[in-house]
Amino acid sequence: MTPVELRKLSAEGKFDKPTSGYCEGYVQANLVALPEIYAADFERFCRANPKPCPLLEIVGPGTTKTSKLASEADLLNTLPRYRVWIDGKNRHEVHEISRFYRPDLVFFLLGCSFSFEDALVKEGISLRHVDHEKNVSMYRTNIPLEAAGPFHGEMVVSMRPIHCTKVALSCIITSRYPGVHGEPVHIGYPEMIGIRNLAQIDYGDAVEVKKEEIPVFWACGVTPQNVLINAKLPFAVTHAPGYMFVGDQKNEDFVV
Amino acid sequence: MTPVELRKLSAEGKFDKPTSGYCEGYVQANLVALPEIYAADFERFCRANPKPCPLLEIVGPGTTKTSKLASEADLLNTLPRYRVWIDGKNRHEVHEISRFYRPDLVFFLLGCSFSFEDALVKEGISLRHVDHEKNVSMYRTNIPLEAAGPFHGEMVVSMRPIHCTKVALSCIITSRYPGVHGEPVHIGYPEMIGIRNLAQIDYGDAVEVKKEEIPVFWACGVTPQNVLINAKLPFAVTHAPGYMFVGDQKNEDFVV
Repeated sequence: MTPVELRKLSAEGKFDKPTSGYCEGYVQANLVALPEIYAADFERFCRANPKPCPLLEIVGPGTTKTSKLASEADLLNTLPRYRVWIDGKNRHEVHEISRFYRPDLVFFLLGCSFSFEDALVKEGISLRHVDHEKNVSMYRTNIPLEAAGPFHGEMVVSMRPIHCTKVALSCIITSRYPGVHGEPVHIGYPEMIGIRNLAQIDYGDAVEVKKEEIPVFWACGVTPQNVLINAKLPFAVTHAPGYMFVGDQKNEDFVV
Repeated sequence: MTPVELRKLSAEGKFDKPTSGYCEGYVQANLVALPEIYAADFERFCRANPKPCPLLEIVGPGTTKTSKLASEADLLNTLPRYRVWIDGKNRHEVHEISRFYRPDLVFFLLGCSFSFEDALVKEGISLRHVDHEKNVSMYRTNIPLEAAGPFHGEMVVSMRPIHCTKVALSCIITSRYPGVHGEPVHIGYPEMIGIRNLAQIDYGDAVEVKKEEIPVFWACGVTPQNVLINAKLPFAVTHAPGYMFVGDQKNEDFVV
């Protein structure tokens, strides 16, 4: 399936699955949409915290169509699933957001670690959640973020168990993708970043960490959803975790 | 002090210190010298185990003068201290080896992790053994090496405590120096590679690992000395740990 086809099926309400494993090689992105009065603060927040919030494209106000990640993709309906946040609470999970649209809405597309997973697998680093067709394991941490306006809080991380002989290689490979979270923020020792029990995930699915493996943690694009809960904005929209925007650019375009 | 000056003072018996911290920016190398009948096996051993034994230059038989790492440096006396091995035992520690010279001797110069330490410090990663003017901590491990002829055994590693937020960066920086051991072979969890107690070093000096730090392990050029003990050759020469050959090439020349 091409990204154009996936976005078309999503717009028609015929694709309602996590996007991991679809459109191999194409960039996937997290979405955060906010009223314009919060946009400058949120952009500042992203630029101050580029590892969890790598800005790929800003759309609007006044338009809902992408121009960089894809040509003219309508952000009101080309993601398979959205979350609508009212006063910091996730109130609706929907397939399209035209009835929530307001002309002052600004859309932020943020890099997603799915974009470097292909590169890891190609170099012989197997990923358990991919092998088991699960969502990646995600955790809230005690790693503080730089605050900007109402946006503040702690980082959310994704975790992948990596064989102990491949941990350094996983750093080297992912460091070449700074636009999609880059190298790990933490390696081993979950308790050092406030994770008491790896079996208790905060988002996604839990996976086993085997005897010769080390849990490796990358900054995660779900971080803004954690931050939105703190910011308690009257209105915001995000993608549903795992149900990403799929662009026409290739992941390779983000290699440095 | 320039490398030429350091080698001249060594040849005159006036420099008898570990070379760490001298001739900043210039390549330092481990030495192994063997009778020619063992040279092909040892070269095969190095090529099969490039992380602990990165081959920089081979000199001889029939000459004792370098041509690549330095122009015409005499390997019989330009290192500050040598070890002479008889039947797998370190029998002499001397300032020059002319009286042990035999025309069938082949000299192997192997990369040394001192060469990437400048790069780590320049990127803001402080190194405790450098700050405290100690030798780096080194340990025998259970990491198996590829065998070749009489050469077999386990890897020796150097350990540097790295702040948990800089561990991935330390992998990325050192991966750019594959000729001088490259990226770490292990990160955290010393017991996974057979190290029970970090305070019990096998070579060098012990250093403290502080609360927010993770012990990071690199392949070490002392590995061949560990292998020589197993191989029990009638005759071999090495540098004394820490008393390296200093060349005229710059560490930057080894960046990829």
